[in-house]
Amino acid sequence: MRADAIQGPAHVWFLRKLLAAMGHPPIRVKLWTGDVLGGPEDAPSIRVGDPGASARLVLDPELAVGDLYVEGRLDIEGDLAAFLSAAFRGRSDVGLALRLLPRRLIERALDTDLGTATRNAQHHYDVGNAFYELWLDERMVYTCAYFPRPEASLEEAQIAKLDHVCRKLALRPGERVVEAGCGWGALALHMARFYGVQVRAFNVSHEQILYAREQAEKGGLSDRVEFVEDDYRNISGRYDAFVSVGMLEHVGLEHYDTLGRLIERSLEPAGRGFLHTIGRSRRQRLNRWIHQRVFPNAHPPTLGEMMRILEPRDLAVLDVENLRLHYRLTAWHWLRRFERELPRIEAMVGRERARTWHFYLAGTVASFETASMCLYQVLFTRATNDAIPWSRAHVYTGEPAQFGEV
Amino acid sequence: MRADAIQGPAHVWFLRKLLAAMGHPPIRVKLWTGDVLGGPEDAPSIRVGDPGASARLVLDPELAVGDLYVEGRLDIEGDLAAFLSAAFRGRSDVGLALRLLPRRLIERALDTDLGTATRNAQHHYDVGNAFYELWLDERMVYTCAYFPRPEASLEEAQIAKLDHVCRKLALRPGERVVEAGCGWGALALHMARFYGVQVRAFNVSHEQILYAREQAEKGGLSDRVEFVEDDYRNISGRYDAFVSVGMLEHVGLEHYDTLGRLIERSLEPAGRGFLHTIGRSRRQRLNRWIHQRVFPNAHPPTLGEMMRILEPRDLAVLDVENLRLHYRLTAWHWLRRFERELPRIEAMVGRERARTWHFYLAGTVASFETASMCLYQVLFTRATNDAIPWSRAHVYTGEPAQFGEV
Repeated sequence: MRADAIQGPAHVWFLRKLLAAMGHPPIRVKLWTGDVLGGPEDAPSIRVGDPGASARLVLDPELAVGDLYVEGRLDIEGDLAAFLSAAFRGRSDVGLALRLLPRRLIERALDTDLGTATRNAQHHYDVGNAFYELWLDERMVYTCAYFPRPEASLEEAQIAKLDHVCRKLALRPGERVVEAGCGWGALALHMARFYGVQVRAFNVSHEQILYAREQAEKGGLSDRVEFVEDDYRNISGRYDAFVSVGMLEHVGLEHYDTLGRLIERSLEPAGRGFLHTIGRSRRQRLNRWIHQRVFPNAHPPTLGEMMRILEPRDLAVLDVENLRLHYRLTAWHWLRRFERELPRIEAMVGRERARTWHFYLAGTVASFETASMCLYQVLFTRATNDAIPWSRAHVYTGEPAQFGEV
Repeated sequence: MRADAIQGPAHVWFLRKLLAAMGHPPIRVKLWTGDVLGGPEDAPSIRVGDPGASARLVLDPELAVGDLYVEGRLDIEGDLAAFLSAAFRGRSDVGLALRLLPRRLIERALDTDLGTATRNAQHHYDVGNAFYELWLDERMVYTCAYFPRPEASLEEAQIAKLDHVCRKLALRPGERVVEAGCGWGALALHMARFYGVQVRAFNVSHEQILYAREQAEKGGLSDRVEFVEDDYRNISGRYDAFVSVGMLEHVGLEHYDTLGRLIERSLEPAGRGFLHTIGRSRRQRLNRWIHQRVFPNAHPPTLGEMMRILEPRDLAVLDVENLRLHYRLTAWHWLRRFERELPRIEAMVGRERARTWHFYLAGTVASFETASMCLYQVLFTRATNDAIPWSRAHVYTGEPAQFGEV
């Protein structure tokens, strides 16, 4: 039995059931038959191109929307991010729809039709620096920016973010910093250049490390920043600051205890630590399309879950900031740039991979828009360390931090 | 068998064991016999006055130090807070010492000698406003202050704290605020007077409510602040802000879910919430003397534990600040004022109760000094609320918050 065994008017019936299971989100579904289901006329719409696509939507909507979009068998009319935001405001546990059909039927139907989608998922990140250069800021910062004003440019906001992190850590010249997961090296270079610290920055990506080293060379910073091509778990030595921006969401909960121990043994008695991560305000499993097609094993933690890293080690939280609206705006900038460069991107990585990325970036905007995701910056230190900034005023005045010893 | 059955040189042996079990903290113990045990000559010392006191120290040090101090059978030479800080730096689980003796011996010994101490614990808080007026600031704020600079006076710092809370909440004129546990009303009055909001403030203490109402009357604020003599669990209605300063540490973990539901139903869609509480950087049970003699059922939570209030309700943390050093300084001001007024305080509440309070305030300084306690301010809102300050800059510039809608 094939997925398109669900035929004719049955499609309409099943799709109506699906929309109901989602709590009737404000979206429309337009079928190849001319049928139109769902929300009001001005609601964002998807166009479903064929019976097989419709069947997969009903059987496993969470995966199928993304997969069918990538395959070009489903299209969104108008703004992709707006459609996804509208859809996300519906119930996310639409796996419910599956209960409408016997399990064996579902499994066999999905089995026959999902080969292509799975192949698409291969090597999502295997795209090279040139690809990211087309839509990231000039420093290649692929994490949430900090917009001093919403009107700031992405370039300004990424620099402001680097400063925001350095100020929170209250870095002082001569201090030693270790960075876990340094991407293309922008933060490490910024810390060394403007805060006079010595940095060791870890990353497992060969291509990113080469890029970062080249930047250090160009900037005359090679003696102050060491880029280490290695897993963060091999960090050794003691530092005045431990910093990790955009790595924790790829570290599974089962590794939090190990990470906590690593941080604890890496910090000097007066050392400060900083974790910047995509997170959740409540426990929730990751969307399956993101999980299976984009970020295998990613887990955006709640703040409570993050405490499993710190509390067992008596590391005290000093400051938490939630930058959800800043990530929404950051992702919006990325998406806008991506869409502007779409023809070049398709030529570079092929149509399917371009559509995967497009869907993913639009989904990111929608996730922060609908608050399914947020962004935590957590500053901490050993609980007994009194050599900490007396207040957070220096983060906003830009003046040197006044330290806590009274 | 009585506690003083442990006699003669046996005292010295047991006390040495106790100091060893505590990890040899830098303190000295001077006995009525002339024996001196423990740390170096300049270390803070306790003087143990009689064999019964010594026996109780050995049998149950966590309770006995405080109880014997209150009874005047144990004295501290020099600064009480400095002694306690030194002692707290030792191992806190000195219940270990109990394992040196058979359980039945311990139980019978304690039984005969603890009647007085238990009676002392009665009505610890039953002291009246005049007592607190002697050592709190002029607004009667009995929670952690916020010192813009460490040199600020307690009066300045309490006003700065009230502003700090109001700014974090980004209160706007005409908004409605509910306060759970309002003490003598300082925050409620400050919000109404300087931020133009309408406040309903709850407190179960009759005497405090009367005081607060009198202040509202005097300040011409009775039409803008309603002081309700009732339990916070009876809060009804919806508000633009929910605020609670210094109450959560008295709410047991088992009530966090109820509190979360209460907060959730009390907040308007764009409402903000604020919890200010003594906390912990790691899970730890409360010192038994504090628990049994001062704050029955108190529980200073870790940040992870606090998340049990918020995460199940999809309330998103926007901002956390740890003000441990500010509480250390606040408690130091209280202790200094208390010690200055000691003769008047003894005349007012009696010697034993004065010594209970003295020991407790010194212990508070020591708790924050040694980081066994910290202070969390947690700002939160419904996860999907975009009408939040764009950044925290307004808290430090004093300018109106720029709200998040882009």
